[in-house]
Amino acid sequence: MTGFSSFEDFRVLLAAGLGPDTEAVDGAEARNGQLTKPPGALGRLEDMAIWYAGWRGDAQPQISAPQVIVFAGNHGVTARGVSAFPAEVTVQMVANFQGGGAAINQLAKLAGARMDVHALELDRPTQDFTQGPAMDEPECVVALKTGWDAVDPQADLLVVGEMGIGNTTSAAAIAHALFGGASADWTGRGTGVDDAGLTLKTDVVAEAVALHGGAGDGLDTLARLGGRELAAMAGAIAAARAHRIPVILDGFICCAAAACLDRTQAGALDHCIAGHESAEQAHKAVLAQLGKTPLLALGLRLGEGSGAALAIQVLKGAIACHSGMATFAEAGVSDG
Amino acid sequence: MTGFSSFEDFRVLLAAGLGPDTEAVDGAEARNGQLTKPPGALGRLEDMAIWYAGWRGDAQPQISAPQVIVFAGNHGVTARGVSAFPAEVTVQMVANFQGGGAAINQLAKLAGARMDVHALELDRPTQDFTQGPAMDEPECVVALKTGWDAVDPQADLLVVGEMGIGNTTSAAAIAHALFGGASADWTGRGTGVDDAGLTLKTDVVAEAVALHGGAGDGLDTLARLGGRELAAMAGAIAAARAHRIPVILDGFICCAAAACLDRTQAGALDHCIAGHESAEQAHKAVLAQLGKTPLLALGLRLGEGSGAALAIQVLKGAIACHSGMATFAEAGVSDG
Repeated sequence: MTGFSSFEDFRVLLAAGLGPDTEAVDGAEARNGQLTKPPGALGRLEDMAIWYAGWRGDAQPQISAPQVIVFAGNHGVTARGVSAFPAEVTVQMVANFQGGGAAINQLAKLAGARMDVHALELDRPTQDFTQGPAMDEPECVVALKTGWDAVDPQADLLVVGEMGIGNTTSAAAIAHALFGGASADWTGRGTGVDDAGLTLKTDVVAEAVALHGGAGDGLDTLARLGGRELAAMAGAIAAARAHRIPVILDGFICCAAAACLDRTQAGALDHCIAGHESAEQAHKAVLAQLGKTPLLALGLRLGEGSGAALAIQVLKGAIACHSGMATFAEAGVSDG
Repeated sequence: MTGFSSFEDFRVLLAAGLGPDTEAVDGAEARNGQLTKPPGALGRLEDMAIWYAGWRGDAQPQISAPQVIVFAGNHGVTARGVSAFPAEVTVQMVANFQGGGAAINQLAKLAGARMDVHALELDRPTQDFTQGPAMDEPECVVALKTGWDAVDPQADLLVVGEMGIGNTTSAAAIAHALFGGASADWTGRGTGVDDAGLTLKTDVVAEAVALHGGAGDGLDTLARLGGRELAAMAGAIAAARAHRIPVILDGFICCAAAACLDRTQAGALDHCIAGHESAEQAHKAVLAQLGKTPLLALGLRLGEGSGAALAIQVLKGAIACHSGMATFAEAGVSDG
């Protein structure tokens, strides 16, 4: 099944998710043990190469067609004054993505990645989720499908990013609803609100979770507290699994969207690694909840998929070594 | 002065080291503040871009000609049984570098870097430094010059790596001599010695430092406890400064060699950043002594310049964003 028209359909798709190719994993592990280096000397690069090989079903894979997709959405909750930037910036930044001027454009180009931008009904923000659900199920399904259909089945690596003034508030509400704790645990400065702004934002997140928290599974949480760009990211991540395309997760907002899949279906993110740890304060805790160790920790907090796109560079290094190095036998090197 | 024939000449060169171009730093900082992102949202990438701009003397620089140089040397101290691999592996791995089969070949190629390999008198190992100085001053000067002359003045980024069975023992002895503490603080498993091997290696490092420790400055330590490939790395790092070529430092051995410069002339490594934190246990402490925060921490412990070459990928991301992004004015985006 590749189509879906309800959460129930989507849950079935998630439950049917394929695992990695164990033969390719075995082959990659065997190859890794024969390469001209001391055992384990490439550290996490070795694990990454074997993980990637498994999902691609190829013991000696290449990365030749990465795809970066940026989804943009607008949020009714911006009416509460939760962002340091006006909501108009979402559409302005979409134009910047289309014109090639944003950080993610440079990083996608550097990675040799195809980049696509999908603006989701920017003139129709989601509902303010302190008043009611951000989206109803049909609206959320449309956004999930936009994400699903945006994935190129021929891609061999996927990064999904986002732009949406107000969406760290949405991500904080999702994390608070899914993982518990206190509102302040999950609420940070986003693009840079001041102390008063942070207090307001923390209160808004608490209000939202008081209204919606505990209702249903990850998909229900995504609809009630998410946004169209978060739902699209979730849809794209799920589609990647169906196409055996490994995913590098980006920062706080991407991981909040991904967490909605994880809490709907355990293991739904097995084809994903964490690209980086964001400076947005709650990202570390979300990664811990997902059981993911970030590749990079360079203080990025931009979104757009920027940290994950940067991490493509590291994964490419892992694959270049794994698939390009000589074995001890090929090189005539004594193996200790 | 570009030639040197003694440590005293070399000290004069180090003392005459140029600083970054402050006009380029100012220009890069101004540009950084106008790019289409919230202030500081690219974290350390912003600092890296400004640092690189300053050393290149260009507020909007490119990386188009990185150079990776691998130096190889053999160590008399291997007679003490300090390595898990036989000394013949040094020459075998040099052939592997020349044939394109090692990890560093793949990473240099991925980074678009020129790669050079210099084998330094492999058939004439340094003296066993538990018996006397590894090198006398003239031998060390020859190795420093080999490194200095290996740097392409047209390169715009430099990574130096090494291969030399026994050289983690040399690096540990240098670190112990320069930084004090106990032998065990600086001695690790290298390519993978077992517990008995680690005990032996720790004793050998202690013996060496008891014989040579406290004698002279960093250059004297480099001659007494180093090796030809370590001296060549130091020479190349110093040459890079003279050519305004920024350097990404590699792991434990590279940083031990670099530390000899730092302890000869304070600030001698201002044109260097730390590419990664190695799994070799003492590397973290050496980085702390040098005041450098690593870009990556992925458990690599291979040497060859591998961690630093991987970090080129990250620096390229920083420069791509800094030099390629649109400003708020260019993109018509509201800046908060």
